[in-house]
Amino acid sequence: MTESERPPLLPEPPVDALRLEVVLGALADPLRMSVARKLLLDSDEFDHPCGWFGFDRPKSSLTHHFKVLREAGVIHQRQYGLERRSRLRIDDLNRRFPGLLDLIASTGQDRRH
Amino acid sequence: MTESERPPLLPEPPVDALRLEVVLGALADPLRMSVARKLLLDSDEFDHPCGWFGFDRPKSSLTHHFKVLREAGVIHQRQYGLERRSRLRIDDLNRRFPGLLDLIASTGQDRRH
Repeated sequence: MTESERPPLLPEPPVDALRLEVVLGALADPLRMSVARKLLLDSDEFDHPCGWFGFDRPKSSLTHHFKVLREAGVIHQRQYGLERRSRLRIDDLNRRFPGLLDLIASTGQDRRH
Repeated sequence: MTESERPPLLPEPPVDALRLEVVLGALADPLRMSVARKLLLDSDEFDHPCGWFGFDRPKSSLTHHFKVLREAGVIHQRQYGLERRSRLRIDDLNRRFPGLLDLIASTGQDRRH
């Protein structure tokens, strides 16, 4: 699917409006940190449906967590039919907060939950 | 004052128990981010009383915010008489979360609050 064939992005803050405190707040939840880390380490090649992450949580809870990440500027989301799919805003995060993604990647080994 | 003359540390998590999500959660508040940034950029040479930061907030609110930082492992606190003073856990944070302090320092220029 080419870029022009993909559904439009759901509302999100533009890169220049990203704020570190807000991004950190979004990442301060273990499940949301997991989402960012998994997108960062496993694949950035496509928009990921919720089910790809393998979380054993109610759909409403996952929908909420993904929305928090999107509204903070951590992920893009697009609506594919009934399903929202996600991708990490790697370039935007690297531009605004150099080192943040390295930090997320490097602390992935000692997850305790 | 030598190390042995300083009051003992208030309870805090040991360095190996620090968790990135918890530290990020503590830093997700603008005032608490300010505390960490100011300690990082302005001085690490002594324990800082609350008043040094120049916040115009009720003492009870400040006490709460400093406690959150201490319990997350971002700062040390010592009780000097009636007053708690704070210092950033620079070595511990660098050891556990390389890049975090650089991130805090480098995004200090675009604070919007």
